[in-house]
Amino acid sequence: MTDPRYDVIAIGNAIVDVMSACQDELIDELGLNKGGMTLVDTDRAHDLYDAMGPAREISGGSAANTLAGLSALGSQCAFIGQVADDQLGEVFAHDIRAVGIDFDTAPRAGDPPTARCLIFVTPDAQRTMNTFLGASQYLPAAALDLDAIASASILYLEGYLWDPEEPRAAMRKAIDAARAAGRKVAFTLSDAFVISRHGDDFRALVEEGLIDILFANHVELAALTGEDDFDAGIAALAPKVPVLVVTRSEEGAVAVANGERAEVAAEPVDEVVDTTGAGDLFAAGFLHGHVKGADLATCLRMGAIAAAEIISHYGARPEADLKALMAEKLGG
Amino acid sequence: MTDPRYDVIAIGNAIVDVMSACQDELIDELGLNKGGMTLVDTDRAHDLYDAMGPAREISGGSAANTLAGLSALGSQCAFIGQVADDQLGEVFAHDIRAVGIDFDTAPRAGDPPTARCLIFVTPDAQRTMNTFLGASQYLPAAALDLDAIASASILYLEGYLWDPEEPRAAMRKAIDAARAAGRKVAFTLSDAFVISRHGDDFRALVEEGLIDILFANHVELAALTGEDDFDAGIAALAPKVPVLVVTRSEEGAVAVANGERAEVAAEPVDEVVDTTGAGDLFAAGFLHGHVKGADLATCLRMGAIAAAEIISHYGARPEADLKALMAEKLGG
Repeated sequence: MTDPRYDVIAIGNAIVDVMSACQDELIDELGLNKGGMTLVDTDRAHDLYDAMGPAREISGGSAANTLAGLSALGSQCAFIGQVADDQLGEVFAHDIRAVGIDFDTAPRAGDPPTARCLIFVTPDAQRTMNTFLGASQYLPAAALDLDAIASASILYLEGYLWDPEEPRAAMRKAIDAARAAGRKVAFTLSDAFVISRHGDDFRALVEEGLIDILFANHVELAALTGEDDFDAGIAALAPKVPVLVVTRSEEGAVAVANGERAEVAAEPVDEVVDTTGAGDLFAAGFLHGHVKGADLATCLRMGAIAAAEIISHYGARPEADLKALMAEKLGG
Repeated sequence: MTDPRYDVIAIGNAIVDVMSACQDELIDELGLNKGGMTLVDTDRAHDLYDAMGPAREISGGSAANTLAGLSALGSQCAFIGQVADDQLGEVFAHDIRAVGIDFDTAPRAGDPPTARCLIFVTPDAQRTMNTFLGASQYLPAAALDLDAIASASILYLEGYLWDPEEPRAAMRKAIDAARAAGRKVAFTLSDAFVISRHGDDFRALVEEGLIDILFANHVELAALTGEDDFDAGIAALAPKVPVLVVTRSEEGAVAVANGERAEVAAEPVDEVVDTTGAGDLFAAGFLHGHVKGADLATCLRMGAIAAAEIISHYGARPEADLKALMAEKLGG
């Protein structure tokens, strides 16, 4: 096995977030699933955009956000995801390359356009996401750079992308390529709705030992294990994955690796502005620590620090100098 | 003369800002005109975008920003400007309509794309703007809604748009329509480079008595009058326009109306983040006061308050509730 070219290569949705502040009344009026992620079609996307206040566009996508955090921390990263050949596709590609991430998936010609996520941010900083998947759901297995996957220490996959058929097939192929090369596979469960549709797939991946690092929040943990009790969920899942990381918002996070359990409190934040990307950046901090060989408690702390940065401003891509922030907070 | 349907109708560039934080070294390396606005062609725009860090997209355009402020304050507004039939054009149209501004200019088919302004924001909060005018420079006189112009108390024009030929002709036609209807014409000089190219036009408009309210900053005042001394510049220009408003960044602003002179200090700001839109929002606050019949000192203060809000965050569109902010600051 040669030295890895990348620390992390990720396959994920290539999405531009369209973000706007709103009051809770609008969430009710539009019948939105507050705090969740809902897939929307073209018509619903238009209706929601019409109802939305003035917005800002910031590149997003769960795994892409995680990579942006990893890259800011100094990890070598590559991204695989499908944009269309349009202006938002250019925006996505620019933003991910601008932080030093290799991104070579060719844009897809014609309709549908690049994916966008209409995000309504309420005064409690909660984000309500409505995703129009557009081109992103047509990522073909043929777009995978298998050599790149084989040359990355970790293949990182987002559960969101398990829903559409073509990317699901691509991810299965990527898992095979990574494992054949002796690399690790990390997976984030993304959202309870994905588990409701594809929980059997995820449980099978876990049982077959194909997942080395699993990220979930407490809701997803319950959905996957069927255990409503947090500790019972951890106890059920931890023996089946080498590294399990479970976040629970303001209550911090827990990780279990090979029988060792560690916990971290949420990092204090002056003002929580927008929780979009909290889980994505937690994963970034944790994975960067893992790649650098940090102990489990430090990996968790790095996750908490990165998550705290992202929720202190609008958007799911880091704005502060994450590397300097880590050095300051970890005293190193 | 019937009651006006709009308080302010504006003709301006229809631009989406592409904003990114950067260090001063990058400004030097790219040979940018720090603090200024430079027009760029397609190739230069691509090169600058490639060199730019991760960005966020927020609708901009000088007069459009001013209207967004006016609308937030409660003025009835309409905008005329040219976008292309593309995704950034949809973004611009959405954002301006979402704040209650009427915008009916039909998108232009085909190339060039919607205008964008690549804005590099340095740690001193200065913004360096590089504008690719795209479709915006092709606003035809035929696109004007002359009835709407005749039914607005104030026609507001941005000097930036005087540079390309078609919008210049459109603005001349709009001035005629507004004056024929007995309405006021407000004009912002926008940037010294525009004055260097079109100063003779602007001086002629002033001499002919076609401008009722003129906005300038201290640099533009000097460029227009040829007077390096601030007070000499004011003395030279004030007798020729009913209302003259001159901003001078952190030194506040001066207005002279029919012989009366008033001054305002800059409004204190906790942290100046990005000065993009400071002049635009100063004009918004001032014009809203003017429309509502406030005295000159109050108009200036409203300008200062709106400008202070805009420089406290990224982007040139208001984020705070400007109406509430005014009530708080002005004591009701």
